[in-house]
Amino acid sequence: MNVVQDIRARALPQRPYIMRSPTITRLPVMNFCSACGARVEITVPPGDTLPRYVCTGCETIHYENPKMVVGCIPEWENRILLCRRAIEPRYGLWTLPAGFMENGETTAQGALRETLEEANARVEILGLYALFNIPHINQVYMLFRARLLDLDFCAGAESLETRLLGETEIPWDQIAFATVRRTLNLYFSDRRNGEYRFHMGTIDPMPKSPTTG
Amino acid sequence: MNVVQDIRARALPQRPYIMRSPTITRLPVMNFCSACGARVEITVPPGDTLPRYVCTGCETIHYENPKMVVGCIPEWENRILLCRRAIEPRYGLWTLPAGFMENGETTAQGALRETLEEANARVEILGLYALFNIPHINQVYMLFRARLLDLDFCAGAESLETRLLGETEIPWDQIAFATVRRTLNLYFSDRRNGEYRFHMGTIDPMPKSPTTG
Repeated sequence: MNVVQDIRARALPQRPYIMRSPTITRLPVMNFCSACGARVEITVPPGDTLPRYVCTGCETIHYENPKMVVGCIPEWENRILLCRRAIEPRYGLWTLPAGFMENGETTAQGALRETLEEANARVEILGLYALFNIPHINQVYMLFRARLLDLDFCAGAESLETRLLGETEIPWDQIAFATVRRTLNLYFSDRRNGEYRFHMGTIDPMPKSPTTG
Repeated sequence: MNVVQDIRARALPQRPYIMRSPTITRLPVMNFCSACGARVEITVPPGDTLPRYVCTGCETIHYENPKMVVGCIPEWENRILLCRRAIEPRYGLWTLPAGFMENGETTAQGALRETLEEANARVEILGLYALFNIPHINQVYMLFRARLLDLDFCAGAESLETRLLGETEIPWDQIAFATVRRTLNLYFSDRRNGEYRFHMGTIDPMPKSPTTG
Protein backbone atom coordinates (compact mmCIF):
# COMPACT_ATOMS: atom_id res chain seq x y z
CA MET A 1 0.00 0.00 0.00
CA ASN A 2 1.59 3.31 -1.01
CA VAL A 3 1.28 6.53 0.98
CA VAL A 4 -1.66 7.90 -1.04
CA GLN A 5 -3.56 4.65 -0.62
CA ASP A 6 -2.69 4.54 3.05
CA ILE A 7 -4.01 8.07 3.68
CA ARG A 8 -7.15 7.23 1.76
CA ALA A 9 -7.66 3.95 3.58
CA ARG A 10 -7.50 5.84 6.85
CA ALA A 11 -9.63 8.73 5.60
CA LEU A 12 -12.40 6.85 3.88
CA PRO A 13 -14.96 4.52 5.42
CA GLN A 14 -16.06 1.34 3.61
CA ARG A 15 -18.26 2.96 0.96
CA PRO A 16 -17.03 6.53 0.59
CA TYR A 17 -19.03 7.16 -2.56
CA ILE A 18 -22.43 6.71 -0.93
CA MET A 19 -23.38 9.30 1.66
CA ARG A 20 -25.13 7.59 4.53
CA SER A 21 -26.27 9.43 7.61
CA PRO A 22 -28.88 8.48 10.18
CA THR A 23 -29.99 12.09 10.49
CA ILE A 24 -29.19 14.04 7.34
CA THR A 25 -30.46 12.60 4.10
CA ARG A 26 -30.25 15.44 1.61
CA LEU A 27 -28.50 13.35 -1.07
CA PRO A 28 -30.56 10.57 -2.65
CA VAL A 29 -28.91 7.39 -3.87
CA MET A 30 -27.93 7.86 -7.51
CA ASN A 31 -29.46 5.45 -10.03
CA PHE A 32 -29.76 7.58 -13.17
CA CYS A 33 -27.66 10.17 -14.98
CA SER A 34 -29.03 13.65 -14.28
CA ALA A 35 -27.74 14.83 -17.67
CA CYS A 36 -29.14 12.18 -20.07
CA GLY A 37 -31.34 9.92 -17.92
CA ALA A 38 -29.44 6.65 -18.59
CA ARG A 39 -28.42 4.28 -15.79
CA VAL A 40 -25.26 5.07 -13.82
CA GLU A 41 -22.76 2.52 -12.57
CA ILE A 42 -20.15 2.78 -9.83
CA THR A 43 -16.67 2.54 -11.32
CA VAL A 44 -13.21 4.10 -11.08
CA PRO A 45 -12.87 6.41 -14.11
CA PRO A 46 -9.61 6.30 -16.14
CA GLY A 47 -6.97 8.43 -14.42
CA ASP A 48 -8.94 8.53 -11.17
CA THR A 49 -8.33 6.51 -8.02
CA LEU A 50 -11.78 6.54 -6.39
CA PRO A 51 -15.09 4.95 -7.42
CA ARG A 52 -17.60 7.43 -8.87
CA TYR A 53 -21.08 7.33 -10.31
CA VAL A 54 -20.47 7.22 -14.08
CA CYS A 55 -23.20 7.32 -16.75
CA THR A 56 -23.45 4.19 -18.92
CA GLY A 57 -24.85 6.38 -21.74
CA CYS A 58 -23.10 9.75 -22.01
CA GLU A 59 -20.17 8.80 -19.68
CA THR A 60 -20.64 11.87 -17.47
CA ILE A 61 -18.84 11.45 -14.14
CA HIS A 62 -21.03 12.54 -11.22
CA TYR A 63 -18.71 13.68 -8.44
CA GLU A 64 -19.96 13.97 -4.86
CA ASN A 65 -18.23 16.24 -2.38
CA PRO A 66 -18.63 17.38 1.23
CA LYS A 67 -21.06 20.15 2.11
CA MET A 68 -20.47 23.18 4.29
CA VAL A 69 -22.70 24.11 7.22
CA VAL A 70 -22.30 27.76 8.21
CA GLY A 71 -23.67 29.60 11.23
CA CYS A 72 -23.15 32.11 14.03
CA ILE A 73 -22.57 32.40 17.76
CA PRO A 74 -24.67 35.55 18.27
CA GLU A 75 -23.43 37.46 21.35
CA TRP A 76 -25.20 40.05 23.49
CA GLU A 77 -23.20 41.14 26.53
CA ASN A 78 -22.55 37.94 28.48
CA ARG A 79 -25.18 35.84 26.75
CA ILE A 80 -25.52 34.04 23.42
CA LEU A 81 -28.55 33.32 21.28
CA LEU A 82 -29.70 29.71 20.94
CA CYS A 83 -32.60 28.30 18.91
CA ARG A 84 -34.79 25.32 19.83
CA ARG A 85 -35.30 23.19 16.74
CA ALA A 86 -38.79 22.89 15.22
CA ILE A 87 -37.61 20.31 12.63
CA GLU A 88 -35.95 16.92 12.52
CA PRO A 89 -33.31 15.84 13.15
CA ARG A 90 -33.13 16.67 16.87
CA TYR A 91 -36.58 18.26 17.09
CA GLY A 92 -36.95 20.20 20.35
CA LEU A 93 -33.22 20.39 21.12
CA TRP A 94 -31.12 23.56 21.25
CA THR A 95 -28.66 24.68 18.61
CA LEU A 96 -26.79 27.66 17.22
CA PRO A 97 -28.33 29.20 14.09
CA ALA A 98 -26.64 27.36 11.20
CA GLY A 99 -27.44 25.54 7.99
CA PHE A 100 -26.20 24.44 4.59
CA MET A 101 -24.26 27.05 2.65
CA GLU A 102 -25.96 27.92 -0.65
CA ASN A 103 -24.42 28.41 -4.08
CA GLY A 104 -23.62 32.04 -4.87
CA GLU A 105 -22.90 33.20 -1.33
CA THR A 106 -19.81 33.49 0.86
CA THR A 107 -19.40 31.56 4.12
CA ALA A 108 -20.14 34.73 6.13
CA GLN A 109 -23.18 35.61 4.00
CA GLY A 110 -24.50 32.10 4.55
CA ALA A 111 -24.00 32.44 8.32
CA LEU A 112 -25.86 35.79 8.31
CA ARG A 113 -28.69 34.33 6.24
CA GLU A 114 -29.12 31.29 8.50
CA THR A 115 -29.15 33.55 11.58
CA LEU A 116 -31.91 35.63 9.99
CA GLU A 117 -33.91 32.60 8.87
CA GLU A 118 -33.75 30.64 12.11
CA ALA A 119 -33.84 33.46 14.67
CA ASN A 120 -34.85 36.60 12.73
CA ALA A 121 -31.69 38.03 14.22
CA ARG A 122 -29.45 40.67 12.68
CA VAL A 123 -25.77 40.32 13.53
CA GLU A 124 -22.38 41.71 12.64
CA ILE A 125 -19.76 39.03 11.93
CA LEU A 126 -16.70 39.31 14.22
CA GLY A 127 -14.63 36.48 12.76
CA LEU A 128 -14.41 32.76 12.09
CA TYR A 129 -14.38 30.97 15.45
CA ALA A 130 -14.51 27.22 14.79
CA LEU A 131 -14.16 24.80 11.90
CA PHE A 132 -15.19 21.19 12.47
CA ASN A 133 -14.76 18.34 10.03
CA ILE A 134 -17.43 15.64 10.25
CA PRO A 135 -16.05 13.17 7.70
CA HIS A 136 -18.51 10.35 8.46
CA ILE A 137 -21.38 12.52 7.18
CA ASN A 138 -19.32 14.50 4.62
CA GLN A 139 -19.78 17.88 6.26
CA VAL A 140 -17.59 20.78 7.35
CA TYR A 141 -19.03 23.18 9.95
CA MET A 142 -17.89 26.81 10.09
CA LEU A 143 -19.14 28.91 12.97
CA PHE A 144 -18.55 32.66 13.25
CA ARG A 145 -18.54 34.84 16.34
CA ALA A 146 -21.13 37.55 15.74
CA ARG A 147 -22.51 40.56 17.63
CA LEU A 148 -26.31 40.90 17.85
CA LEU A 149 -27.30 44.31 16.52
CA ASP A 150 -30.61 44.49 18.43
CA LEU A 151 -32.91 42.37 20.56
CA ASP A 152 -35.73 42.12 18.00
CA PHE A 153 -35.15 38.44 17.34
CA CYS A 154 -37.80 35.72 17.36
CA ALA A 155 -38.19 32.12 16.23
CA GLY A 156 -38.08 31.56 12.48
CA ALA A 157 -40.01 28.80 10.71
CA GLU A 158 -37.48 26.13 11.69
CA SER A 159 -37.32 27.12 15.38
CA LEU A 160 -39.74 26.60 18.28
CA GLU A 161 -38.19 29.40 20.32
CA THR A 162 -35.08 31.56 20.56
CA ARG A 163 -33.43 32.63 23.79
CA LEU A 164 -30.43 34.59 25.07
CA LEU A 165 -28.59 32.37 27.55
CA GLY A 166 -25.63 32.87 29.87
CA GLU A 167 -23.10 30.09 30.49
CA THR A 168 -24.91 28.75 33.56
CA GLU A 169 -28.25 28.73 31.75
CA ILE A 170 -27.16 26.58 28.78
CA PRO A 171 -29.25 23.34 28.67
CA TRP A 172 -26.17 21.13 28.26
CA ASP A 173 -28.21 17.90 28.21
CA GLN A 174 -30.46 19.22 25.45
CA ILE A 175 -27.94 20.38 22.85
CA ALA A 176 -28.80 19.14 19.35
CA PHE A 177 -25.37 18.45 17.84
CA ALA A 178 -21.85 17.52 18.96
CA THR A 179 -20.46 20.44 16.93
CA VAL A 180 -22.61 22.89 18.88
CA ARG A 181 -21.72 21.38 22.25
CA ARG A 182 -17.99 21.53 21.44
CA THR A 183 -18.25 25.07 20.12
CA LEU A 184 -20.09 26.28 23.24
CA ASN A 185 -17.56 24.58 25.54
CA LEU A 186 -14.65 26.21 23.69
CA TYR A 187 -16.40 29.56 23.57
CA PHE A 188 -17.10 29.82 27.30
CA SER A 189 -13.65 28.44 28.12
CA ASP A 190 -12.03 31.07 25.89
CA ARG A 191 -14.16 33.77 27.50
CA ARG A 192 -12.97 32.76 30.96
CA ASN A 193 -9.40 32.95 29.66
CA GLY A 194 -10.00 36.39 28.17
CA GLU A 195 -9.13 35.47 24.57
CA TYR A 196 -11.15 33.99 21.72
CA ARG A 197 -8.93 31.79 19.58
CA PHE A 198 -9.73 30.05 16.27
CA HIS A 199 -10.40 26.33 16.71
CA MET A 200 -10.25 23.40 14.27
CA GLY A 201 -11.29 19.87 15.04
CA THR A 202 -12.87 16.66 13.83
CA ILE A 203 -16.10 15.14 15.10
CA ASP A 204 -16.17 11.34 15.13
CA PRO A 205 -19.34 9.24 15.06
CA MET A 206 -21.08 9.10 18.43
CA PRO A 207 -23.68 6.72 19.83
CA LYS A 208 -27.17 8.14 19.39
CA SER A 209 -28.18 10.40 22.26
CA PRO A 210 -30.85 8.96 24.57
CA THR A 211 -32.57 12.36 24.43
CA THR A 212 -34.60 12.64 21.25
CA GLY A 213 -36.83 15.55 22.21
CA MET B 1 -37.76 43.66 0.05
CA ASN B 2 -37.12 42.32 3.55
CA VAL B 3 -33.70 41.81 5.06
CA VAL B 4 -33.40 38.12 4.11
CA GLN B 5 -34.34 38.90 0.53
CA ASP B 6 -31.95 41.81 0.48
CA ILE B 7 -29.01 39.69 1.68
CA ARG B 8 -29.89 37.04 -0.90
CA ALA B 9 -30.23 39.56 -3.68
CA ARG B 10 -26.76 40.81 -2.91
CA ALA B 11 -25.32 37.34 -2.39
CA LEU B 12 -26.78 35.57 -5.38
CA PRO B 13 -26.15 36.26 -9.05
CA GLN B 14 -28.97 35.97 -11.60
CA ARG B 15 -29.26 32.22 -11.76
CA PRO B 16 -27.82 30.90 -8.50
CA TYR B 17 -29.14 27.39 -9.02
CA ILE B 18 -27.12 26.69 -12.14
CA MET B 19 -23.37 26.48 -11.70
CA ARG B 20 -21.71 28.22 -14.60
CA SER B 21 -18.00 28.66 -14.85
CA PRO B 22 -15.81 29.27 -17.87
CA THR B 23 -13.11 27.06 -16.47
CA ILE B 24 -14.55 24.52 -14.03
CA THR B 25 -17.33 22.35 -15.36
CA ARG B 26 -17.58 19.45 -12.95
CA LEU B 27 -21.38 19.74 -12.51
CA PRO B 28 -23.49 18.90 -15.55
CA VAL B 29 -26.79 20.65 -16.15
CA MET B 30 -29.54 18.64 -14.46
CA ASN B 31 -32.30 17.34 -16.71
CA PHE B 32 -33.32 14.08 -15.04
CA CYS B 33 -33.85 12.85 -11.49
CA SER B 34 -30.86 10.78 -10.36
CA ALA B 35 -33.12 8.75 -8.05
CA CYS B 36 -35.97 7.70 -10.40
CA GLY B 37 -34.98 8.94 -13.88
CA ALA B 38 -38.00 11.24 -14.44
CA ARG B 39 -37.62 14.82 -15.70
CA VAL B 40 -36.74 17.54 -13.17
CA GLU B 41 -38.11 21.05 -13.18
CA ILE B 42 -36.78 24.22 -11.54
CA THR B 43 -39.19 25.38 -8.86
CA VAL B 44 -39.25 26.77 -5.31
CA PRO B 45 -40.28 23.86 -3.06
CA PRO B 46 -42.93 24.49 -0.35
CA GLY B 47 -41.30 26.08 2.70
CA ASP B 48 -38.18 27.00 0.73
CA THR B 49 -37.20 30.41 -0.66
CA LEU B 50 -34.84 29.42 -3.48
CA PRO B 51 -35.42 27.63 -6.79
CA ARG B 52 -34.24 24.01 -6.81
CA TYR B 53 -34.21 21.10 -9.22
CA VAL B 54 -37.27 19.05 -8.18
CA CYS B 55 -38.31 15.70 -9.68
CA THR B 56 -41.65 15.72 -11.51
CA GLY B 57 -42.01 12.01 -10.66
CA CYS B 58 -40.83 11.17 -7.12
CA GLU B 59 -40.63 14.84 -5.97
CA THR B 60 -37.04 14.47 -4.71
CA ILE B 61 -35.40 17.87 -4.23
CA HIS B 62 -31.88 17.95 -5.65
CA TYR B 63 -29.92 20.54 -3.68
CA GLU B 64 -26.69 21.98 -5.04
CA ASN B 65 -24.09 23.46 -2.72
CA PRO B 66 -20.61 24.99 -2.92
CA LYS B 67 -17.56 22.78 -3.09
CA MET B 68 -14.38 23.02 -1.08
CA VAL B 69 -10.92 23.16 -2.63
CA VAL B 70 -8.18 22.23 -0.16
CA GLY B 71 -4.43 22.47 -0.49
CA CYS B 72 -1.06 23.32 1.01
CA ILE B 73 1.68 25.92 1.00
CA PRO B 74 4.60 23.47 1.37
CA GLU B 75 7.58 25.24 3.00
CA TRP B 76 11.25 24.30 2.98
CA GLU B 77 13.49 26.87 4.67
CA ASN B 78 12.85 30.13 2.74
CA ARG B 79 11.23 28.51 -0.28
CA ILE B 80 7.84 27.04 -1.12
CA LEU B 81 6.81 24.28 -3.47
CA LEU B 82 4.84 25.19 -6.59
CA CYS B 83 3.47 22.91 -9.31
CA ARG B 84 3.16 23.69 -13.03
CA ARG B 85 -0.20 22.46 -14.25
CA ALA B 86 -0.37 19.61 -16.78
CA ILE B 87 -4.16 19.91 -17.12
CA GLU B 88 -6.76 22.48 -18.04
CA PRO B 89 -7.79 24.97 -16.86
CA ARG B 90 -4.61 27.04 -16.88
CA TYR B 91 -2.38 24.40 -18.44
CA GLY B 92 1.30 25.34 -18.02
CA LEU B 93 0.75 27.89 -15.25
CA TRP B 94 1.98 27.63 -11.67
CA THR B 95 -0.14 26.78 -8.65
CA LEU B 96 -0.06 25.48 -5.10
CA PRO B 97 -0.99 21.79 -4.73
CA ALA B 98 -4.76 21.84 -4.15
CA GLY B 99 -7.94 20.21 -5.37
CA PHE B 100 -11.53 19.28 -4.59
CA MET B 101 -12.09 17.85 -1.11
CA GLU B 102 -13.50 14.30 -1.24
CA ASN B 103 -16.26 12.73 0.81
CA GLY B 104 -15.01 10.88 3.89
CA GLU B 105 -11.93 13.01 4.55
CA THR B 106 -11.15 16.08 6.66
CA THR B 107 -9.98 19.37 5.17
CA ALA B 108 -6.40 18.66 6.30
CA GLN B 109 -6.49 15.08 4.98
CA GLY B 110 -7.67 16.45 1.63
CA ALA B 111 -4.83 18.97 1.58
CA LEU B 112 -2.27 16.23 2.36
CA ARG B 113 -3.75 13.97 -0.34
CA GLU B 114 -3.67 16.70 -3.00
CA THR B 115 -0.06 17.54 -2.11
CA LEU B 116 0.87 13.90 -2.54
CA GLU B 117 -1.06 13.51 -5.79
CA GLU B 118 0.17 16.68 -7.49
CA ALA B 119 3.73 16.87 -6.17
CA ASN B 120 4.44 13.47 -4.58
CA ALA B 121 5.35 15.56 -1.55
CA ARG B 122 5.01 14.54 2.08
CA VAL B 123 4.21 17.40 4.45
CA GLU B 124 3.23 18.09 8.02
CA ILE B 125 0.27 20.48 8.36
CA LEU B 126 1.14 23.58 10.43
CA GLY B 127 -2.29 25.26 10.40
CA LEU B 128 -5.03 26.80 8.28
CA TYR B 129 -3.57 29.88 6.58
CA ALA B 130 -6.19 31.25 4.17
CA LEU B 131 -9.87 30.79 3.36
CA PHE B 132 -11.19 32.35 0.15
CA ASN B 133 -14.81 32.45 -0.94
CA ILE B 134 -15.32 32.37 -4.71
CA PRO B 135 -19.11 32.78 -4.83
CA HIS B 136 -19.36 33.22 -8.60
CA ILE B 137 -18.12 29.66 -9.13
CA ASN B 138 -19.53 28.21 -5.89
CA GLN B 139 -16.21 27.34 -4.32
CA VAL B 140 -14.44 27.86 -1.00
CA TYR B 141 -10.65 27.51 -0.97
CA MET B 142 -8.81 26.47 2.18
CA LEU B 143 -5.03 26.55 2.12
CA PHE B 144 -2.84 25.21 4.93
CA ARG B 145 0.72 26.13 5.81
CA ALA B 146 2.70 22.90 5.73
CA ARG B 147 6.30 21.82 6.32
CA LEU B 148 7.92 19.61 3.68
CA LEU B 149 9.26 16.46 5.37
CA ASP B 150 11.85 15.68 2.69
CA LEU B 151 13.00 16.78 -0.76
CA ASP B 152 11.87 13.62 -2.57
CA PHE B 153 9.06 15.36 -4.41
CA CYS B 154 8.37 15.19 -8.13
CA ALA B 155 5.56 16.03 -10.56
CA GLY B 156 2.40 13.94 -10.18
CA ALA B 157 0.13 13.05 -13.11
CA GLU B 158 -1.52 16.49 -13.12
CA SER B 159 1.74 18.48 -12.98
CA LEU B 160 4.39 19.19 -15.62
CA GLU B 161 7.02 20.03 -13.01
CA THR B 162 7.42 20.91 -9.34
CA ARG B 163 9.90 23.42 -7.99
CA LEU B 164 11.00 25.00 -4.71
CA LEU B 165 10.96 28.77 -5.20
CA GLY B 166 11.98 31.74 -3.06
CA GLU B 167 9.99 34.98 -3.07
CA THR B 168 12.11 36.59 -5.80
CA GLU B 169 11.85 33.48 -7.99
CA ILE B 170 8.02 33.26 -8.07
CA PRO B 171 6.77 33.60 -11.68
CA TRP B 172 4.13 36.21 -10.75
CA ASP B 173 2.92 36.61 -14.34
CA GLN B 174 2.37 32.87 -14.70
CA ILE B 175 0.28 32.06 -11.62
CA ALA B 176 -2.76 29.92 -12.47
CA PHE B 177 -5.41 31.29 -10.10
CA ALA B 178 -6.29 34.51 -8.26
CA THR B 179 -6.56 32.55 -4.99
CA VAL B 180 -2.99 31.34 -5.35
CA ARG B 181 -1.66 34.80 -6.25
CA ARG B 182 -3.38 36.36 -3.23
CA THR B 183 -2.24 33.60 -0.92
CA LEU B 184 1.39 33.94 -2.05
CA ASN B 185 1.27 37.74 -1.65
CA LEU B 186 -0.12 37.42 1.89
CA TYR B 187 2.32 34.67 2.77
CA PHE B 188 5.48 36.54 1.77
CA SER B 189 4.14 39.75 3.33
CA ASP B 190 3.48 37.93 6.61
CA ARG B 191 6.93 36.39 6.48
CA ARG B 192 8.54 39.81 6.12
CA ASN B 193 6.48 40.95 9.14
CA GLY B 194 7.60 37.92 11.15
CA GLU B 195 4.09 36.58 11.84
CA TYR B 196 1.78 34.30 9.85
CA ARG B 197 -1.83 35.30 10.47
CA PHE B 198 -5.03 33.57 9.30
CA HIS B 199 -6.64 35.33 6.32
CA MET B 200 -10.19 35.28 4.95
CA GLY B 201 -11.35 36.95 1.78
CA THR B 202 -13.57 36.83 -1.27
CA ILE B 203 -12.44 36.54 -4.88
CA ASP B 204 -14.60 38.41 -7.38
CA PRO B 205 -14.82 37.57 -11.09
CA MET B 206 -11.82 38.81 -13.06
CA PRO B 207 -11.26 39.40 -16.74
CA LYS B 208 -9.53 36.43 -18.32
CA SER B 209 -5.76 36.66 -18.08
CA PRO B 210 -3.98 37.32 -21.37
CA THR B 211 -1.52 34.57 -20.42
CA THR B 212 -2.99 31.19 -21.22
CA GLY B 213 0.18 29.12 -21.18
